[in-house]
Amino acid sequence: MHIRRTSVHNAWDNAVPPVATLAPGDELTVETADASGGQLRPESGTADVGALDFGKVNPVTGPFHVDGAQPGDALVIDVLEMETGDWGWTACIPGFGLLTDDFPDAHLRISKISGGFAEPFPGVRIPVVPMIGTIGVAPPEPGEHSIVPPRRWGGNMDIRHLGPGARLVLPVGVEGALLSLGDAHAAMGDGEVCGTGVETDAVVRLRVDVRRGSAPSTPIIETDPRSHRTGASLATTGIGPDLMRASKDATRALIDEITARTGMAAVDAYLLASVAADLKISEVVDVPNWIVSAHLELSLLS
Amino acid sequence: MHIRRTSVHNAWDNAVPPVATLAPGDELTVETADASGGQLRPESGTADVGALDFGKVNPVTGPFHVDGAQPGDALVIDVLEMETGDWGWTACIPGFGLLTDDFPDAHLRISKISGGFAEPFPGVRIPVVPMIGTIGVAPPEPGEHSIVPPRRWGGNMDIRHLGPGARLVLPVGVEGALLSLGDAHAAMGDGEVCGTGVETDAVVRLRVDVRRGSAPSTPIIETDPRSHRTGASLATTGIGPDLMRASKDATRALIDEITARTGMAAVDAYLLASVAADLKISEVVDVPNWIVSAHLELSLLS
Repeated sequence: MHIRRTSVHNAWDNAVPPVATLAPGDELTVETADASGGQLRPESGTADVGALDFGKVNPVTGPFHVDGAQPGDALVIDVLEMETGDWGWTACIPGFGLLTDDFPDAHLRISKISGGFAEPFPGVRIPVVPMIGTIGVAPPEPGEHSIVPPRRWGGNMDIRHLGPGARLVLPVGVEGALLSLGDAHAAMGDGEVCGTGVETDAVVRLRVDVRRGSAPSTPIIETDPRSHRTGASLATTGIGPDLMRASKDATRALIDEITARTGMAAVDAYLLASVAADLKISEVVDVPNWIVSAHLELSLLS
Repeated sequence: MHIRRTSVHNAWDNAVPPVATLAPGDELTVETADASGGQLRPESGTADVGALDFGKVNPVTGPFHVDGAQPGDALVIDVLEMETGDWGWTACIPGFGLLTDDFPDAHLRISKISGGFAEPFPGVRIPVVPMIGTIGVAPPEPGEHSIVPPRRWGGNMDIRHLGPGARLVLPVGVEGALLSLGDAHAAMGDGEVCGTGVETDAVVRLRVDVRRGSAPSTPIIETDPRSHRTGASLATTGIGPDLMRASKDATRALIDEITARTGMAAVDAYLLASVAADLKISEVVDVPNWIVSAHLELSLLS
């Protein structure tokens, strides 16, 4: 089964009619559109970011009706393979991202994706670790629900470990589950601090199965070793009683280090952090100050 | 220079007299006491956790006066080598930890440490990745400051990447810097969710240097590849508008998975998460719901 990226919707709604029906254990190939829904192109510039129609962003391909899936069941999705497009985009979108106040202006970087690398900045080659940004099932609550926030039912989770070799377990909320996916990234850091990864279209091969009566309380993933980073890294810290503030402080400190070490513009350092740096909670127990650290492989700074 | 673990203090205070003086570039070997300050022993039990004298916890060896270090300078510490003791302890301490309400009772697990593994539970062998839990310089503010929270000046940072091969850069707050360290862990997960790692004494070899006028705003680390985890992992999620609540939810979901897959008691699963699972901020931009995920290598569950 091969589903084209023209079969999309832009909100979670259990009334959206299925585009295909699967049996448990079926494999399928799904084309996904990039998160702009085709509004950005390789030749786009900053003005196109300002002109984005947010009603069209983050389209997901689907939904897929899974025969026999019932509320309370678990939907088990194995990501078998994933192929990204040959270009991607990373943007600072005004009002969106961790540091919206620091970076109020639109900014755009186009990456060529080839040979296993994305290159959003000349000479900065980010290893491609493809992942699915948005994947979820229809919520049982009626009506339209924004595609932006993730929920118990999955959705725009932006978990960078959800790529080839990973298994995702979602709770089923409605009869047939109604699975949809989109928003592929060629690379992303934990946290996705500017709000975008290397956004690209993709072709994803999946296997979908059902486990009776074993819905997890929230999504669970089994990751593949390929999604881990192993190189020596630079880590900056945010320290204080609020994890959000500590996340911002660690990210700001990383941007400062990147600009000091490379001469890159601050907004480009923000985008680089979003596609390649990982936010970790180093400790959340040494009252009253927690530490969030932002880790970026040193090889990207040389 | 070799400093014994009897030269300790239990609070940050720039009036504590130095135990030794270093020149920039000097190497030294520092013995550190375990975080209980010798109150727990290999034969200790749960009752000893309840009887801990908190005035004696988290002793740090030092302080070391670094010749010429001035406020505004950066202190650059290279961790050259680290040898842990041959046993360690991991405890649930009432009132301390991420899930204090879920786990109100004291609990203790003693690990034998040998052959590169710590074994807090029979058959569960955690790879030893030694790290320094507490390392910092004296704050410029006079008087005693609790050893528990980390601050801009470092301290009880519990950053699990701060082990052999890592470089730490701290701001200098007072003349001579007054560096101290302790609280070694044979293993710890990002977050240190129950509040303890595999706590052990250690011998640490360091090199200390000074960079004029380049104090970072908060501590910065360059990590070593040995501190990264690379295996296939189980990741649970916490999803919502508060990162602390999401951290708790992800940890609770991980404890549920560990107990379901292994039959381990919940409090032991909590300790296992603390010494071996990593809290990551998967996304902090998809308003209004953020995701914290808790990652544990699957090999520890088989």
